[in-house]
Amino acid sequence: MLLFPSSKGLKRVVIIGGGFGGIELARRLNDKMYQVILIDKNNYHTFQPLLYQVATGGLEPDSIAYPIRKIFSGRKHFIFRMAEVQSVDHTKKLIGTNIGTINYDILVIATGSTTNFFGNAEFEKNAMSLKSVTDALDLRSLILQNFEKLLTVESTEEKEKYHNIVIVGGGPTGVEIAGAMAELKKHVLPHDYPELNINDLVIHLVESSKVILSSMAGKSSAKAKIFLEHLGVKLWLNSAVASYKDQCVFFKNGESIPCNTLIWTAGVKGNIVTGFDESVITRSNRMKVDTFNRLTGYDSIYIIGDLAAMPNNGNDAHPMVAPVAIQQAKMLARNLNLEDSRSWKKFRYNDAGSMATIGRNKAVAEISGIKLQGILAWFVWMFVHLMSIVGFRNRLVVLVNWIWSYFSYDRAIRLIIRPFTRKNG
Amino acid sequence: MLLFPSSKGLKRVVIIGGGFGGIELARRLNDKMYQVILIDKNNYHTFQPLLYQVATGGLEPDSIAYPIRKIFSGRKHFIFRMAEVQSVDHTKKLIGTNIGTINYDILVIATGSTTNFFGNAEFEKNAMSLKSVTDALDLRSLILQNFEKLLTVESTEEKEKYHNIVIVGGGPTGVEIAGAMAELKKHVLPHDYPELNINDLVIHLVESSKVILSSMAGKSSAKAKIFLEHLGVKLWLNSAVASYKDQCVFFKNGESIPCNTLIWTAGVKGNIVTGFDESVITRSNRMKVDTFNRLTGYDSIYIIGDLAAMPNNGNDAHPMVAPVAIQQAKMLARNLNLEDSRSWKKFRYNDAGSMATIGRNKAVAEISGIKLQGILAWFVWMFVHLMSIVGFRNRLVVLVNWIWSYFSYDRAIRLIIRPFTRKNG
Repeated sequence: MLLFPSSKGLKRVVIIGGGFGGIELARRLNDKMYQVILIDKNNYHTFQPLLYQVATGGLEPDSIAYPIRKIFSGRKHFIFRMAEVQSVDHTKKLIGTNIGTINYDILVIATGSTTNFFGNAEFEKNAMSLKSVTDALDLRSLILQNFEKLLTVESTEEKEKYHNIVIVGGGPTGVEIAGAMAELKKHVLPHDYPELNINDLVIHLVESSKVILSSMAGKSSAKAKIFLEHLGVKLWLNSAVASYKDQCVFFKNGESIPCNTLIWTAGVKGNIVTGFDESVITRSNRMKVDTFNRLTGYDSIYIIGDLAAMPNNGNDAHPMVAPVAIQQAKMLARNLNLEDSRSWKKFRYNDAGSMATIGRNKAVAEISGIKLQGILAWFVWMFVHLMSIVGFRNRLVVLVNWIWSYFSYDRAIRLIIRPFTRKNG
Repeated sequence: MLLFPSSKGLKRVVIIGGGFGGIELARRLNDKMYQVILIDKNNYHTFQPLLYQVATGGLEPDSIAYPIRKIFSGRKHFIFRMAEVQSVDHTKKLIGTNIGTINYDILVIATGSTTNFFGNAEFEKNAMSLKSVTDALDLRSLILQNFEKLLTVESTEEKEKYHNIVIVGGGPTGVEIAGAMAELKKHVLPHDYPELNINDLVIHLVESSKVILSSMAGKSSAKAKIFLEHLGVKLWLNSAVASYKDQCVFFKNGESIPCNTLIWTAGVKGNIVTGFDESVITRSNRMKVDTFNRLTGYDSIYIIGDLAAMPNNGNDAHPMVAPVAIQQAKMLARNLNLEDSRSWKKFRYNDAGSMATIGRNKAVAEISGIKLQGILAWFVWMFVHLMSIVGFRNRLVVLVNWIWSYFSYDRAIRLIIRPFTRKNG
């Protein structure tokens, strides 16, 4: 039996995924033309850019997550279900989920991306990701647990594992978490752990290429490097990691760092849905679409956001960032809302720039070609992020926390609410 | 090998438990006389009176929990350890914990209380408690999961289990959560779940005696009853529950309510530490102390708070509430800080009154004999609770949330971050 009666005269659009793309699309689809069914495995939308602040005790998880039902409160011909999609049968236009089968007229897959360990099982098992609220809470718990643990271990060898925190990947997430950890070390830990010699603690940031923030201009990434070094972060450039054994991370050149906390921000891959031919799956597990976000070779199926691999000025895809997902959602909504498909417009990415915060008064930003650094970039970063958070209450609580942290130098939310335990070991 | 070197010339006080009593005592002990070691299984202090607001989506858990290390930041001769106590060897003055053995000169047990299911294994396995932050988060998840689940079940019989929420115990916690659930039903759920007929949902409050809030004056408990009925809560007075089978709660008189969500606030019992003679353990698992909080028959061991059973004007113990724990901690600190034990003062409970909030503008309060009801009681309740929360940031965030909820009629934090799954079934 199929779930949900159809709304008379309305085509049904099923959207899988309540991330930036899925939410934006559902908001914009014309409810006089479409019945929209949105499916997500969580009942909330996650503001991923601030997950690193949850992981480092700066923000409550509840401030960067927002109930999906509330976003669509009062919306007609809209259904939300918390469910996991198992597979798509494109010939019958059916979606199999853990709560039953749903039929669609138009399917939009906006499932985003997941951490890419590039097939390395050791990293997958032992490294911490930072893609979801639960990831961030697990990392927060682990970081704090390890300081508590450090107080109880005896041997110098064992202590060393807790003295090093290794972050793999020098993109924005890696840089931001390295900076936040360094500030935690500088302003919070000395007060919390007077028994420890805080200088023994080292934050390592490992990047396989020769620069951090490689997607930004040379000037920005050079400045970010200076900021991180100023905060005492140890940078390992041109350093590829090879394996992780016995709580020790090994580099390809044979060097190693003993560490219990290994944070992996070195890559993401598309979060594919089963039921499609392998030929549409390309590099980084992304699915090939045309410039209208139509899945190559399939009828009435669209992919938006991180999962979509759309030709882009000679590249085979766009960067896997929120603005692409949001812009693709806007264009797809515009196109789908037209009666006549001959008026459809091709997607073209408007890259407004990028930014990364390293710490207090320290950020780099590139906005429409203008490069900012330091305190001004930092304020721009805060403003842009604050305005992008869904919900007035969340914005207010984040603002209160930021103001509090700025004047108190504190990261107040260092709670181990659910201790983290490694699966299978 | 023993943990921690002793501080020269200082006696060592080990306090087990970072609740209201343990924290107050550790704060007040003279650090020129004592080295204080505080042990708790969590790294935070929990403000239990507001747990019900976490469970019902009104507050972030992080706002009512406070890092213990931060409370004692800068304090000399103070050590905190996150550890679980396994047993006490009073003859050797040793405490066995999961991180090693600790010796003491003076031991203070302030482990508080845990939910009392009065030996009923069905309730213990299936009912939700509300004594810790994780309890509150589990309950929040379960309540929200069950609304999501209700949308997917087909049979009328099955639906009924999700239509009823049964709260057992008409004390302050039961009354407060019943009121909060009723407001969630009234103001939030109709917007979130337009597909449901919200009138099918019933909040039941079950109390075995003939009144709710039996510790308060008749006038207060009668008013609380009116408030709850006004909010649509179904009251079951003189109704004792007997068992829970197949997602159905049965009363002693044979009546029953099908319900998936069963919340248990019907009693607490002392959280005892092993290593003591059974003769010191009395009603509700509490440990007998004299009027100086000294454990009966033991040397240098004190019990404060919910766990302590101290003779009280003909009763065998005080009520198990935070003010008793705090006042006992203050008196014990005063006594221990004296050089001469002949100047010790006996503990005498100063009952400043009690209060319970039922909902928006609805509370009952008895303060120093003055009885307040309605909006005034509600403001007093909020003021007293806000001022009692540890930490300025937490107070600020709670205040922001309360103001937000007041004007928006919203409970914004309805997130299922970690879905709840029942243990053993």
